[in-house]
Amino acid sequence: MAKEQFVSQIAGIEEDFPQWYTDVVIKTKLVDYGPVKGTMVIRPYGYAIWENIQRELDARFKRAGVENSYFPLLIPMSFLTKEAEHVEGFAPEVAVVTHAGGAKLEEPLVVRPTSETIIGHMMGKWVESWRDLPLRLNQWCNVMRWEKTTRPFLRTSEFLWQEGHSVYATGEEAEAETQAMLRLYEEFAKNVLCMPVLVGRKTEKEKFAGAVATYGMEAMMHDGKSLQAGTTHYMGQNFAKAFGVQFTDKDGALKYGYTMSYGVSTRLIGALIMTHGDQRGLVLPPPVAPVQAVVVPIAQKKEGVLEACEKLCATLREAGVRVKLDDSENSPGWKFNEWEMKGVPVRIELGPRDIEAGKMLLFRRDTCEKCEAELGDADRVKELLGAISSNLYTVAKARMEERIVSADTLGELLDGVNGGNFVRTGWCGERACEDRVKEFAQATARVMDENGTQPVCVCCGKPAKHTVFFARAY
Amino acid sequence: MAKEQFVSQIAGIEEDFPQWYTDVVIKTKLVDYGPVKGTMVIRPYGYAIWENIQRELDARFKRAGVENSYFPLLIPMSFLTKEAEHVEGFAPEVAVVTHAGGAKLEEPLVVRPTSETIIGHMMGKWVESWRDLPLRLNQWCNVMRWEKTTRPFLRTSEFLWQEGHSVYATGEEAEAETQAMLRLYEEFAKNVLCMPVLVGRKTEKEKFAGAVATYGMEAMMHDGKSLQAGTTHYMGQNFAKAFGVQFTDKDGALKYGYTMSYGVSTRLIGALIMTHGDQRGLVLPPPVAPVQAVVVPIAQKKEGVLEACEKLCATLREAGVRVKLDDSENSPGWKFNEWEMKGVPVRIELGPRDIEAGKMLLFRRDTCEKCEAELGDADRVKELLGAISSNLYTVAKARMEERIVSADTLGELLDGVNGGNFVRTGWCGERACEDRVKEFAQATARVMDENGTQPVCVCCGKPAKHTVFFARAY
Repeated sequence: MAKEQFVSQIAGIEEDFPQWYTDVVIKTKLVDYGPVKGTMVIRPYGYAIWENIQRELDARFKRAGVENSYFPLLIPMSFLTKEAEHVEGFAPEVAVVTHAGGAKLEEPLVVRPTSETIIGHMMGKWVESWRDLPLRLNQWCNVMRWEKTTRPFLRTSEFLWQEGHSVYATGEEAEAETQAMLRLYEEFAKNVLCMPVLVGRKTEKEKFAGAVATYGMEAMMHDGKSLQAGTTHYMGQNFAKAFGVQFTDKDGALKYGYTMSYGVSTRLIGALIMTHGDQRGLVLPPPVAPVQAVVVPIAQKKEGVLEACEKLCATLREAGVRVKLDDSENSPGWKFNEWEMKGVPVRIELGPRDIEAGKMLLFRRDTCEKCEAELGDADRVKELLGAISSNLYTVAKARMEERIVSADTLGELLDGVNGGNFVRTGWCGERACEDRVKEFAQATARVMDENGTQPVCVCCGKPAKHTVFFARAY
Repeated sequence: MAKEQFVSQIAGIEEDFPQWYTDVVIKTKLVDYGPVKGTMVIRPYGYAIWENIQRELDARFKRAGVENSYFPLLIPMSFLTKEAEHVEGFAPEVAVVTHAGGAKLEEPLVVRPTSETIIGHMMGKWVESWRDLPLRLNQWCNVMRWEKTTRPFLRTSEFLWQEGHSVYATGEEAEAETQAMLRLYEEFAKNVLCMPVLVGRKTEKEKFAGAVATYGMEAMMHDGKSLQAGTTHYMGQNFAKAFGVQFTDKDGALKYGYTMSYGVSTRLIGALIMTHGDQRGLVLPPPVAPVQAVVVPIAQKKEGVLEACEKLCATLREAGVRVKLDDSENSPGWKFNEWEMKGVPVRIELGPRDIEAGKMLLFRRDTCEKCEAELGDADRVKELLGAISSNLYTVAKARMEERIVSADTLGELLDGVNGGNFVRTGWCGERACEDRVKEFAQATARVMDENGTQPVCVCCGKPAKHTVFFARAY
């Protein structure tokens, strides 16, 4: 009864996935809409996921030798225009500060949509000699890109992200880091978000404004659509020349550096929700779940029950498990439903009979299976969290692989994307064909498959130069 | 020779303290000026201090039960006007977004100078019942207050901070948290920044725009001036009424909540520099120092020296010490000077003779004393870091206490602040007298001393209602 009531609050995941998503993120209190159109408020349960993502990713950056820093929010409008493609890509979507301190500004300032320009400017000031290279910086910050539509985490005018920016003495090194960071993101997606991704180079049409080459990682959502979950960009000398990032090399010659950048954002929260969620709501991967195990007392008013639950929590916490005791006045059934909707990986039920028998009941959210364990066996709980992570990845990977189909014609491609698949096709490399695919099937080139061997262009039938994954995308 | 060269780069700390500060923060690469007037770039060495501050403070907030969240950067201009005093205080210094996405906005948006209004708005949406209270949120973010002058960390148009906001059912609870957070800040300042502070209530003139009462912690800088290092505000129902933060109480009645807020910012970095620094440069407190111990090899080209240094670093790192090996090509003397200027608490010198004897030489930055220890004795290094923290606090506290003088007349007060002191005086409570002190001595009321017993107002000579610490301030 109580369960039905909960489930009925969420739209059908198969019937209306967009509404399911909105219901889940709002009802689990991950996020709320802000007062200004296009903005979101990240509530504690959602922000805790972001903190876990940050901690895991930041540790990886630090191990890789990248240092954190902070650059100003406001960028002179003139900076944007210094790189021709960059201004074309970003100028239409920036927010502009025209007044400050009670007066009109001499030059309008844009709220950063990304920081290549201002970081390029500062790097131009800091870099003098080959000894200063490489310079590898990252910042965690807010950015703004004015959007007409709002979908919490996926598309909002302001979002949180990290943006890494490096300058190297040679193009080879900068290009190698562009690849290395893509692999770092892929490993992170797998081991922290339990999310399989396709990685590869983007087409010219889909690349970052101002880049020589963009690489992306794409994840398959529950509905078969693709979500760009992270990108890395090799800039060549484009920004170095625009901002005068020059150094004296070992041979005494003055040379421009080569830059690259990379970023992931709060979009990742949307990605993991739409990868793992089910009809009951969220299914959070253990490495980022704010609560990894919730202890629900059974007959909590009976003597000794709450005490045993508190002791269990202390044991688990000591073992490094993020655990919460739900000792609220709600019924156990109500609590089960609430924590299932909130996607807590493991529920532990503990009542008088369990305590007497020295047992506890474990419920795993991913498969909804139950099993018994020795009361207080923290290793068993940690083992189960590991098994859940592993299973989430395996299931998502199997689904993605099952839903990658090949197509040789536009008709097959359309059938493929209509069926919720990623479609692997040949492509001649011409922009006209890529545009035609989008027009015909509302699908975009997600990434190119370096090892692909599709023989002909799905659009014009000429010999293919590349193999491309086309899909509809968020 | 090398040492002189380094020292000569920094202005005299006694002769020109403002220039000393600028020299130190720029030359140690804590910070740089941004391209827009009034902005700063926080470089890796500075940002690492901020990360350490964040980690320590965030852990304290979490232990206290406060949850992190994130609210939008842009606030409708109309929100500011809902609280009369608030708009008066902040409107003159906001930056305003008037255009976005290529079009003029219907309503201008301000870049948050602080978030009471937008958080009040959301709390009004979330709070319904007494069961929803208290609601205690915090956010780590950037804020903007347009400033005419720039001093890195101390006064910039954009800075980083945390702002905590709570709503309670009763004024007593909200007031109690206002006091509790002030004590949390005081403990943090002592144990993490090794910085003694005076805490107390602010006068009406100095309180936050829209608050019923503001409390501050004030730290004494090297030149005897005061720096406001953190504030907590009790708002009563001012913001709850402005934003409709209402709840149904246990008795069924609809009531307004009581709110409070508290914040500290990247100013703290400026505070610790100006509290502990000396003629050689920075003196960083061990709990926030990005590098707690630097290992400098002596005769590093001799066989076995670098290996022994690396092994030592591994041992110290394992023991939880933030350690760095300086194996650059620079001479040991050059390295000594550089790391002294950068304020690293402990330097470890290790050469062939030390290795042979199984010893290492420890240099402590605070007192510039040297001592010998067993090679690889991590406990000894940690003990020394603890002793440095303790000594930094003791020295700063003694200096502050020595420089608190009492005054009964404006002349005495002026002498006091001219001498670089905090001046404890009586005050009748009238704004006119407070204004007169400022005009006469360029000193402001920092905090009131609850236990003070100064008998007469320093300005008008009437019986004192309060005892106040007056000082010149950053």
